[in-house]
Amino acid sequence: MYSIEALQKKVNHEIDVWSETLSKKEPHQLYAPVKYALSMGGKRLRPVLLLMSANIFRDDIESGLPAALAVEIFHNFTLLHDDIMDKAEVRRNKPTVHKHFSENTAILSGDAMAFLSYQLLLKCRCEKLSEITRLFTETALEVCEGQQYDMDFENRQDVTEAKYLEMIRLKTAVLLACSLKAGAQLADAENETAKLMYDFGINLGLAFQLQDDLLDTYGNQESFGKKIGGDIVANKKTYLLINALEKANSEQKQELKKWLAKTGFDANEKINAVTNLYNQLGIKKLTEEKIDSYFNAASEILQKLPVDEKRKLPLKNLSKMMLGRNS
Amino acid sequence: MYSIEALQKKVNHEIDVWSETLSKKEPHQLYAPVKYALSMGGKRLRPVLLLMSANIFRDDIESGLPAALAVEIFHNFTLLHDDIMDKAEVRRNKPTVHKHFSENTAILSGDAMAFLSYQLLLKCRCEKLSEITRLFTETALEVCEGQQYDMDFENRQDVTEAKYLEMIRLKTAVLLACSLKAGAQLADAENETAKLMYDFGINLGLAFQLQDDLLDTYGNQESFGKKIGGDIVANKKTYLLINALEKANSEQKQELKKWLAKTGFDANEKINAVTNLYNQLGIKKLTEEKIDSYFNAASEILQKLPVDEKRKLPLKNLSKMMLGRNS
Repeated sequence: MYSIEALQKKVNHEIDVWSETLSKKEPHQLYAPVKYALSMGGKRLRPVLLLMSANIFRDDIESGLPAALAVEIFHNFTLLHDDIMDKAEVRRNKPTVHKHFSENTAILSGDAMAFLSYQLLLKCRCEKLSEITRLFTETALEVCEGQQYDMDFENRQDVTEAKYLEMIRLKTAVLLACSLKAGAQLADAENETAKLMYDFGINLGLAFQLQDDLLDTYGNQESFGKKIGGDIVANKKTYLLINALEKANSEQKQELKKWLAKTGFDANEKINAVTNLYNQLGIKKLTEEKIDSYFNAASEILQKLPVDEKRKLPLKNLSKMMLGRNS
Repeated sequence: MYSIEALQKKVNHEIDVWSETLSKKEPHQLYAPVKYALSMGGKRLRPVLLLMSANIFRDDIESGLPAALAVEIFHNFTLLHDDIMDKAEVRRNKPTVHKHFSENTAILSGDAMAFLSYQLLLKCRCEKLSEITRLFTETALEVCEGQQYDMDFENRQDVTEAKYLEMIRLKTAVLLACSLKAGAQLADAENETAKLMYDFGINLGLAFQLQDDLLDTYGNQESFGKKIGGDIVANKKTYLLINALEKANSEQKQELKKWLAKTGFDANEKINAVTNLYNQLGIKKLTEEKIDSYFNAASEILQKLPVDEKRKLPLKNLSKMMLGRNS
């Protein structure tokens, strides 16, 4: 079986090789931004998860490579268009595509990436290809829905925990789940087993996004890779803020709302004040417990998987790694 | 067999029914713009061509309906994103999606439309579905390439006739060709026959786009539906302008380049002056001859089609109608 590192290496190599082919494609102005977007790197979790899932059921995973590329290209397409919508100027320490090239380029090359991901997916020769393509398409639509909810929530004060969890399920979890299920399907796993992989992915994805929310406030800047407190500064309606608003007494709520309404504030002052309120309200523990509950649900699903325990090990280890766990 | 009118009615009905289902979908902000875009109408040539092609080979064309919807939704997705890129404010006398809603909405709802078109296409139950989905994907990429060339050409002075024809092949003809081929494939036509339908579509599409170029200068405003001379005002590198620059003597070229370089001109004055140059250079006749040559090539391909002549009649008539011909 492949180790996490071996799969990452394999995925990186495949992406490099594929990216190189883009240099020869015309029109250059359409394909160069695609290559640029992919050169930004990233953890490439989705293709690794896809191949890892396939590898649970089959030793030879070569035939899954185009699909692995497809989910990564698709993911990068969403980042590219999201960055335009969010007016983000930097991603992974490099100018975003619409900043480096132009907004029109980012729209059109993004579109091309969506179709390139289908082109790759459709290279797979597999009996269940139509079924996998349908799953991929439903997932793509759900990711759009998630992004729409995320944008809607910016201007809404009535976002409940349930609505928030549904948003991150759509925006983040379904693509991880799709990658895992597609991997299983490509390796000819039974339908019920493939479904287990999907459910595992949903729980893992929810835990992963909540962990990201948590680290945005409580993380270590160096290992997190982004500036701590960004969500607080931007009034992002995360699991932390929604629960803080829910749990605060009237005095704390007033204080919190004061910071949410304030303009022209000092960023660090706001981050400290809001974090302090989170601390008073036990938001860190609450979020950790929620993450645990999803992680445990994912682990239970993995236990049910009708394969030898040792075949589950790489995926178990990767899930722990994704959630920064040692045990 | 279905008449043109019967197919148009069928397509309009299907789109209306499908659009209605969008009203119930959440998030509303994502799906309402899709419904709005479709409510703008249009000739809906692509779905009609798809069904008409299927009808050549089979009486029952119901199973082709989702694919017919798919090509129309896809076409509208391209219009939506193109309108952002072109900063177009009006389409079919209504505010464009990015004007009526917002640019972010137009990007994201456009993305959703691309995936909705796959969702519809994948509803077709047909042995060749993967093959059709591959054709659809290649076509989608080519349409992106065409749009990129179109944008590139705006800032280039070295656009040759060959490059221009390749651009309109990609931007316009391939989707007509894809619709025709997919219709044939859905109706279980032989591979070679389906290929003939594709080639027919390419020639028809090229003729159709050149006709559009011609009417932009020489059309009747009422029947053309757009203001005459728009391409001239915008210095659009059409078949007409490219050939005028090619054929002009040094004096005429100087005059033409003067108008191309001029800013702050009176639109009608420019339209009259450039049209006058086109008249001197016989550009109308030249373009008509080029249209004829593609139309004739299309007709010859249709002749080769191994089916009874009377089954070809609706498509023959529609091609003539598309090119404004009586005979």
